[in-house]
Amino acid sequence: MRLRHKPWAKDKLSAYPQYVIQTPEDWKGKWDQAFSQKGPIHIEIGTGKGRFITEMAKANPSINYIGVELQESVIVSALDRLIEAEVPNLKLMNINAEKLKDYFEKGEIARVYLNFSDPWPKTRHEKRRLTYKTFLDSYQSVLIDKGEVHFKTDNQGLFEYSLKSFSEYGMLLKYVSLDLHNSDYEGNIMTEYEEKFSNRGNRIYRCEVQFK
Amino acid sequence: MRLRHKPWAKDKLSAYPQYVIQTPEDWKGKWDQAFSQKGPIHIEIGTGKGRFITEMAKANPSINYIGVELQESVIVSALDRLIEAEVPNLKLMNINAEKLKDYFEKGEIARVYLNFSDPWPKTRHEKRRLTYKTFLDSYQSVLIDKGEVHFKTDNQGLFEYSLKSFSEYGMLLKYVSLDLHNSDYEGNIMTEYEEKFSNRGNRIYRCEVQFK
Repeated sequence: MRLRHKPWAKDKLSAYPQYVIQTPEDWKGKWDQAFSQKGPIHIEIGTGKGRFITEMAKANPSINYIGVELQESVIVSALDRLIEAEVPNLKLMNINAEKLKDYFEKGEIARVYLNFSDPWPKTRHEKRRLTYKTFLDSYQSVLIDKGEVHFKTDNQGLFEYSLKSFSEYGMLLKYVSLDLHNSDYEGNIMTEYEEKFSNRGNRIYRCEVQFK
Repeated sequence: MRLRHKPWAKDKLSAYPQYVIQTPEDWKGKWDQAFSQKGPIHIEIGTGKGRFITEMAKANPSINYIGVELQESVIVSALDRLIEAEVPNLKLMNINAEKLKDYFEKGEIARVYLNFSDPWPKTRHEKRRLTYKTFLDSYQSVLIDKGEVHFKTDNQGLFEYSLKSFSEYGMLLKYVSLDLHNSDYEGNIMTEYEEKFSNRGNRIYRCEVQFK
């Protein structure tokens, strides 16, 4: 995604504490009190402009969602969507996904979503891929036992890499589709990217993997 | 593959003991003496008409190969090819792959190849797929420690199923390509099916998995 510099982004994120978690480290160990209702918490890493997580929150009102996005200039677009949608079971967090355990205790997160993550195709950038082992460490450190990562992308190289990375980590592959939009999978919620790239004829790959 | 009844097949297989192993159970524990040269033994399960295994044997003269095929009427075509090719490091075996441990001791096989295996798409036929767990049991029972299965197919459903089956079995995914013919994989030897189906525009999927 091309990033536009938005000098006002930080101020805007601060202006909506009901939607954007301001000091997430304060909630560590207390996330069951962070939403207006109790429920499992699912997070999306790299939530971008927030279409997926907002639609998921609308479709699944008994689940609490957190959209995690590092880029201020991107997460403000998700905030605009959230202001309009007014879904009570969704919040946003402007943090680095490598630092999840600074903000959550083990078991506070029930599921992690990764959608159309940056492929970082160059080998020297492998460590930046959100399915690299240090990120898997980060997810596992906050997930429930046997917690799952649900991942989709149109990038063939990233999907191949990720299948190997999950396997090396000892994760169990519970579901895989090599052509999601021509499969019998129901209830798919498309991200902005997914709609754009599938309209270009790209295949969408999807898998569900479980920590052991 | 459509099978033609060939009543003469059995006799022909018996007539070439130098190429077709006649009483494989007699070699159990003695496979290091079965070929004119010592070397690791790689087997292909469902060798069909034998193009892949014959070309592999020519390309890798220090490895001994066995093409395993259940159908007499099919393996005779592989025999014809072998008679013409005269490769000393290749033999054929007309047995059921579920029974490998009746013929080999643990560790006598260094690698298993599966190419374009019958997908058996109906769920009630799952147990017939060559990547079903009972077949994985069979392969593991004869392979060296950390022995590998190299698998390719153009059948998306079988490939998805197999990735899950390998993972459930605890196998490590060491290599995966979701579009082999447009990848940087070198030295691919095509099977008869592979040439035919890739000419139709089908993607070829390939993976290497390792027993733990």
